[in-house]
This record gives sequence, structure tokens and C-alpha cells, in this order.
Amino acid sequence: MLIVQKYGGTSVANVERIKAVAERVTKTAEKGNGVVVVVSAMAGETDKLIELACQISPSPGDREMDMLLSSGERVTSALTAMAIEARGYPAKALTGRQAGIITNKVHTRAKIEKISGDRIRKALADGKIVVIAGFQGVTEGEADVTTLGRGGSDLSAVAIAAAVEADLCEIYTDVDGVYTTDPNIVAEARKLDKISYEEMLELASLGAKVLQTRSVEFAKKYNVPIVVRSSFNDNAGTLVAEEDKDMENVVVSGIAYDKNQAKITVVKVPDKPGIAARLFEAIAFANIVVDMIVQNISSDGKSADISFTVAKTDSKKALAVTETIAKELGAGRVDMRDDISKVSVVGVGMRTHSGVAARMFETLAGHNINIIMISTSEIKVSCIIDLKFTELAVRVLHEIFGLSG
Amino acid sequence: MLIVQKYGGTSVANVERIKAVAERVTKTAEKGNGVVVVVSAMAGETDKLIELACQISPSPGDREMDMLLSSGERVTSALTAMAIEARGYPAKALTGRQAGIITNKVHTRAKIEKISGDRIRKALADGKIVVIAGFQGVTEGEADVTTLGRGGSDLSAVAIAAAVEADLCEIYTDVDGVYTTDPNIVAEARKLDKISYEEMLELASLGAKVLQTRSVEFAKKYNVPIVVRSSFNDNAGTLVAEEDKDMENVVVSGIAYDKNQAKITVVKVPDKPGIAARLFEAIAFANIVVDMIVQNISSDGKSADISFTVAKTDSKKALAVTETIAKELGAGRVDMRDDISKVSVVGVGMRTHSGVAARMFETLAGHNINIIMISTSEIKVSCIIDLKFTELAVRVLHEIFGLSG
Repeated sequence: MLIVQKYGGTSVANVERIKAVAERVTKTAEKGNGVVVVVSAMAGETDKLIELACQISPSPGDREMDMLLSSGERVTSALTAMAIEARGYPAKALTGRQAGIITNKVHTRAKIEKISGDRIRKALADGKIVVIAGFQGVTEGEADVTTLGRGGSDLSAVAIAAAVEADLCEIYTDVDGVYTTDPNIVAEARKLDKISYEEMLELASLGAKVLQTRSVEFAKKYNVPIVVRSSFNDNAGTLVAEEDKDMENVVVSGIAYDKNQAKITVVKVPDKPGIAARLFEAIAFANIVVDMIVQNISSDGKSADISFTVAKTDSKKALAVTETIAKELGAGRVDMRDDISKVSVVGVGMRTHSGVAARMFETLAGHNINIIMISTSEIKVSCIIDLKFTELAVRVLHEIFGLSG
Repeated sequence: MLIVQKYGGTSVANVERIKAVAERVTKTAEKGNGVVVVVSAMAGETDKLIELACQISPSPGDREMDMLLSSGERVTSALTAMAIEARGYPAKALTGRQAGIITNKVHTRAKIEKISGDRIRKALADGKIVVIAGFQGVTEGEADVTTLGRGGSDLSAVAIAAAVEADLCEIYTDVDGVYTTDPNIVAEARKLDKISYEEMLELASLGAKVLQTRSVEFAKKYNVPIVVRSSFNDNAGTLVAEEDKDMENVVVSGIAYDKNQAKITVVKVPDKPGIAARLFEAIAFANIVVDMIVQNISSDGKSADISFTVAKTDSKKALAVTETIAKELGAGRVDMRDDISKVSVVGVGMRTHSGVAARMFETLAGHNINIIMISTSEIKVSCIIDLKFTELAVRVLHEIFGLSG
């Protein structure tokens, strides 16, 4: 088998952890597998570099920021290759550029355009364990260093796995895998053995932070099987892969929540075409990502109320933009609430099993939890509720959908 | 004018120092000069990375070591470019690769083969201040990262100055310039206004550590004028340039000393051709650099005594090699002394003024300092003496050659 193993910041946090990674890598190689290792920066290093940049400039340039930040992964890849060689296995460290990872020119959040992977394949053919600096690539032509945004090493690993047609991409982190919900809230939360890409996407974007969303999208597109597991033990982890028959029998896979939510409502918006477009264009232009959107015609039939949610960290900026547009459109007042959270029920089984949404609403109502907004997709139902009820809602939903095992 | 400014580790040691560098750079640009900045890693960073590597592997690979170590200068170049931009000047950070610095494949002590410098020239033409990561280059073809050895950023700066045909290369450090001797030993030591490349080479290789030897050789070859000065004040510094008429009037420019010396003597070596070659080949093969060599035919005319000096740090290894070869050659015993030092008188004026050596020997004798070995070049006389007399010898020679002003 050809296996890509990605180790996050806590897994390479110090000399001892890097040696432990080398041990795991060489054990995998000993079983006759080809191994490509992708590493993050040592835990805390990236934040330290960002802190330095912020002390030096109020608005450091993106191109130079990428040159700065990419150094952390170079350090870890060199050290990890040394640790593997110290165990008697030939290893070769490659930077993003050397691995042939070509991105677009959008510094600090670049998108991978292609991976040549020639040097990876050549090194593997030479019997080497290849260690690649995650989170980074280069632009075509000038070969300026780019970074892929927070959590970008997950994406590096999945993209490399696709490029070299690896049989498996293992993502090592400090948790055992993907859980039915946050074990800090529900003690009975179970680790999932398997989960589909779609479910993982919903769980990841809803706040289950084990895997970066873009990496799951990439894995889905190229059908790369991922295993999320801990580098601190030998537990089996969670397989993230294409949906199979087996999975469809499970109606609900997990309960996610997100406390980083704020809701903005514009009341009495004149009901004319193009109004919503004008508002959300302005918000997109301000680089604010909108999550849920709900619009209702008001009782008089002549105006509408528009509500939407954004990340709490963006709420002030979003409020200011919305107030400007509301005035321009002749709408009524603008309200903002940030004492809310989003609770979601996720599962591919919903496609074939009806009644999940009704059961969710009923359960919340039964515990006197008021639903402020609702949003649904094929495999997910999300409700905005009062922030203070978050833990209660997660617990009762986890119980009612039979996830506590 | 086009000026290359190189800032060493203490000059970029922290956020405040980097901001001070940016101020100096922008002031130079304000006067209408084009500026290319070359930076070292922040003081202590390279040692920290070496320490990490040593904790991970007893013998870290050279190629990975270079990838590791080169990250320090990338960090400083990005931060320095940010600091310059924060002062309102457009700046561009370039890695060694992006600056077009091509080296041979000898990792950890690579030699520069060529510098394209296209991107440097383009950025300058675009009105930018260019900030280049020192100490590093890449191999041709595979573009693997290489480093130039300790003090390599000096070499980067001089080579870049030659490539872009700069008018001046300023080397900023934590001392005011080149002194007639170590001010810690002789309070009256004077800063030199000017010194020739040849003299600087003798002073540098003899222990005056302000400029890396290879960078001076490079500057001499391409006739790059260097100014050594402090980044902590606005003093004028020392110009290192081609010898001019003015300089020839100064017989002695400085007194150097080197306490890192050990002397090995092989007594009664059979006086046959090829014997010395055999010995020094073996020592070179062990990667030991030999400094002085003296050979005398002994009184019986049938054998010779060979003495040579090496760095104290290499003395045990050199002794072992010498003992093996001595046995093989049928020589007598091998002695080693490491309680010695080398004191040298340097000056281009010696070429035209006789009597410097005689005066040196006479002065040392007058203070009862025994001379153990002598070595001379066109512009230098060196004596090996007892270690304990080093400071005394430097002081009296500084006085007798009129350097105290």
C-alpha cells in the first residue's frame, strides 16, 4: 500500500513527539508500505510568527506573510526526515515547491491548482520515505511561496494522496477520530467507525474541527479515503469515505453545534426584486461569509423581513454594512443578536428516512427550547436557538437519535 | 548610488532592532539610493535549530540540515520587508532561490556558482527596496536549498553586490569597524578608516571576526568596495577596498592574534621525498585545516623535524592521524602543545618597507617572549608564542609599530 500520513502541530510539538512520529512512520514502512509524510509547523510556531509580524506592521503584506509562515513547516519537515533517518530509514524532506504543489496567486489562502509530484514519485521509487512541508505551495512561473490558509496541511495531505494515487490518507491529530458529538458536552458520545464525505463536510463546517473543510471537499472529489486518528495512541480512528449501503441504515450520524454565530434581521424590507441581492452582495464585498438566510413576507404582503447569520467575529462589520444598505433601500430597523448558537443533526440516512426534522423540533420544544431560525439541507437540519440552551439541546438530541449507543 | 546593506544576527535580533534596520534602510533610500538589503537569521535562531537537529539525530543529513537552517533567514527577510513597508516604502522579500543564487551541491558549505539577479534588478526597477535572505542559495536543476556555511550572509551580500554592480556593500554588525587590534587587549586600539582586501584577509583569517574570509576574497576578485560599520550608531566604519597609494605609506595596519592554535611536531622524520606529502594528505583527508608548517633538517642531516599548527578544536583528531602516519613512516615521537597562540603583524606597506620582521622579533625578545615558530607572507609576519604572553605581545607590538596614534 501507498499511505500518506499527515501529522498536525500537536503531533510534532517537540523533539519527543517528532521522534514518536518517526517511530510510527518507520513501523508503517516496515510492513512493506510506501509512506509519504506531511507535517504541520510545531504547535504554537505559526502563532508566534504571526505575533512577530503584527508587532512589526499593522498590515503585513500577504506575500511576505506567506514567506514568513511557510518557514514553520520547513523546519518540521527537515527535523522529521532527520528523525526517520536516525532510525535507519532513508528519508527525503521536500518543501511544497519541491513536491510540485502549484497554487494560484492568492497569498495566505491560496488554492491548489495542480501537483506534479514527480519528485515524490522518484523518491518513493528510490526507496525513500518522503516528508513534505504542509500548508504551502508556490505560484506558477515566479515560484513565489504561498500558503493554503489555516488547517491547510490537511489539504496538502489529501491533495498529495490524490496526486500520487495513495491507497489511504491518514490524518493524525490529538483526538481519536470523529465523534457523534462533542464528548465535553455529552459523556456518552461515541467515536464513529465510518462517516461519509458529505456528513463530514456538514460536521466540519458546523464546528467539529478535526478536519479542514476544503480537504474533505478535495477528498470527496478525488475519492481519497481518509482515516482520522490520534498520534498519541494506536486506536483505529474514523474512516471518512464514500457513502456505502451500510451507512444508509444510520439515519443520524452526529450532532454538531456552533457557538460562533450572530443573527442580523432587517425588518420591513420593501418587497421588490433585487433587494436581497443588493444586501448580500455588499456583505460579500466586505469579505463576510453568511451562513443561514431566512426571508418571510410580512403580514401586510408589501414588505419582507430578512434574517441571516454570520460568525460572531464578523458581526459588528456585518451590522454596519447592513445598516448602510437598509437605509439606502428604505427598510425599517436592523436588529442584531449574538446570544445564539446553531445546533445541527447530520446524517446521510435522512435522504431516505423522513421525520428527522419533525422529531428534532418536537424534542427541542419538549424541553422548552425556542427555535429562532431553521435551515435544512439533504443530510442536515440546523436550528438557531438561545446560546444558553446549547448544551441541553445537544444532549437531548444525542439521546433521542440513539447516538449514545 | 546602488547600495547593498547586510545586517547580521545582532542587528535583527528582535522586533525593535528590525524596526531600527527598516529606519536606516528607508533613510538610505530617501537620499535617492537604490537599496538591496541582505539579512541574517535573528541572533540565536540558527544555534537553536542546530540544537533541535542534534537532539533528534546524532548525525543529521546535510541536505535536510540546509532546509532546516535556511528557514531562519527567510523569517528575517519577510519581517524586514514588512517593517520597511510599514514605513511607507514598497519592499519585496526574496529567498536565496528567488534572488537567483545558484550554488554547487556541497550542502552546509556550498560555494556560489552564479547569481542571475534578474528578480533583484526587476524589483529595483519597479522602485522597490529588495530584502534578500542571506546565507542560502539553491542547486541548479533540482533547486535544493543549500547554505553557505557560518558567516555566509556576508558572502551573500558581497556576491549580490557584484551581481547587480552595486556601488557599495555595507556590512552592518555590532562593532564600529576594523580596529588596529582587539580593543579588549589594547585600550588605545584605533578604528581604521581604510584597509586593503589583502590586509583584511590576513586580519580575518587570523581571528579578527568582523568579516567572513570568503566574502573578502569574493570582494577582492570582483572589486566590490565594502564598508564595515555598526547598526547601533552612525559612525563612519571602515572601508575595505583595493590598495591605493595612500595605504602604502602605512607600514603596519594591525596586530592580530589567534588563541585557537595547537602545534604538533613529528621528530626525526626520515629525510626522503614524499614524506611531508603523505602526512599532510592524510590530515587533509581527515578534513583538518593546517595553518603554519615548518620543517628543519636535523643536525645529523639524515632526518627532519616537521612542525605544524591546527585549530585547537581539531588537535586531538590531528594528533591521532599524525601518530598513525609517523609510525608508518618510521619517524620518531610525536609531540603536541596547545598552550600556544599566534600573534601577527599585518600591513601592505611591508612590501616596500624592510625590517618589519626583524623589529617584531627584537621587540618580543626584548620582553622575554620566546618565539616557537615563525611564518611570513608578503604582507604579514606571524609568530607562535606561549599562550600566556599573548596580550603582552599584542600590546608591545601595537605600541612599537605606532598604531596607538
